[in-house]
Amino acid sequence: MFPAIDKAGQLAALDDNYRAVDEALEIGAACLVLVVGGMPKGSKDIDGARQQVHDGIASLLQYSRKVGMPLAIEPLHPMYAADRACVNTMAYANDLCDVLGDDGFGIALDVYHVWWDPDLRNQIRRAGKQRLLAFHICDWLVPTTDLLLDRGMMGDGVIDIAGLRTAVEAEGYSGFHEVEIFSAANWWKRSPDEVLLTCKQRHLECC
Amino acid sequence: MFPAIDKAGQLAALDDNYRAVDEALEIGAACLVLVVGGMPKGSKDIDGARQQVHDGIASLLQYSRKVGMPLAIEPLHPMYAADRACVNTMAYANDLCDVLGDDGFGIALDVYHVWWDPDLRNQIRRAGKQRLLAFHICDWLVPTTDLLLDRGMMGDGVIDIAGLRTAVEAEGYSGFHEVEIFSAANWWKRSPDEVLLTCKQRHLECC
Repeated sequence: MFPAIDKAGQLAALDDNYRAVDEALEIGAACLVLVVGGMPKGSKDIDGARQQVHDGIASLLQYSRKVGMPLAIEPLHPMYAADRACVNTMAYANDLCDVLGDDGFGIALDVYHVWWDPDLRNQIRRAGKQRLLAFHICDWLVPTTDLLLDRGMMGDGVIDIAGLRTAVEAEGYSGFHEVEIFSAANWWKRSPDEVLLTCKQRHLECC
Repeated sequence: MFPAIDKAGQLAALDDNYRAVDEALEIGAACLVLVVGGMPKGSKDIDGARQQVHDGIASLLQYSRKVGMPLAIEPLHPMYAADRACVNTMAYANDLCDVLGDDGFGIALDVYHVWWDPDLRNQIRRAGKQRLLAFHICDWLVPTTDLLLDRGMMGDGVIDIAGLRTAVEAEGYSGFHEVEIFSAANWWKRSPDEVLLTCKQRHLECC
């Protein structure tokens, strides 16, 4: 997360991001996924927050490119624009890539955040193989009872996951399908073995 | 709402919409706001739902134009794409206006649904005075504890309402600022007098 209410806060956030790059290097991660942050407490200036995100990533790229750790910006669902990430569409993530350069910089596509977007297929094509650095899967439940912790197991919701997989792989994406299910009232309460088995089954059936 | 799982359901939905036009005429409404519906139960085909919305509005316009009741499509927040409205951005609403024609057809802009959109200012300009048929206000709370019923009173959240009012009025919008606050745990529990008084005060202070 990058935005902060003052310069000291911005520098502290940037320092935290430098450390995240170092940690990603240490564990041999393929990329560092950026959840960029929302508006600082008390602010109503989302354009300003987006400018801070741009400036923060521009600074971080100077370091991450030198040490060879790709950064992947993750557009988060618009319901997180205020407090988690003010980059909320693939289009805006692609715009940032255009401006900041594709070298060591791309996008993490999580179907949960972007499935609703009528412009999604165009933006996946625009991103292409070079920018598509990660692919996260889960499902959107109807009803969804919590903004953060009520994601669904693949197949239990309304997302055409197989269609989106086909779209990213048509661009040449060949990385993992990473399952990410925040589910306080359901999957987090089950045994890890059951969850993993279900993930594997559903991945074969629904993705 | 327009989409349904089969032809009979679509016709029933359309019939309901015809009745809504008649009721709007009877009470002398300035326009009929369309919450267009999400995906039919069991469907994962949001493109198909959007096509049904297009087709349904095209049919309804043949009637609403004849009887003189303007239709205002309301883009709903993407968190409602599955079950309430698959039109989720001003851009997509403008696209529908382009395709279906501006005669007796426009957009209801609710700040709650669209405040997060980086393309919002452009799309307000694109809509212009002719398409801007309604302006709804409330606020986005941080945190938001319920997807539907936790809207905030103007000033209690993060939306730059005054800035958006300025933007729509710069296009020539001169209609009401309609306060719409779904708030099961807060404002719905208070006395109507207190709520109205607070609305009036906050409208002066924050909008």
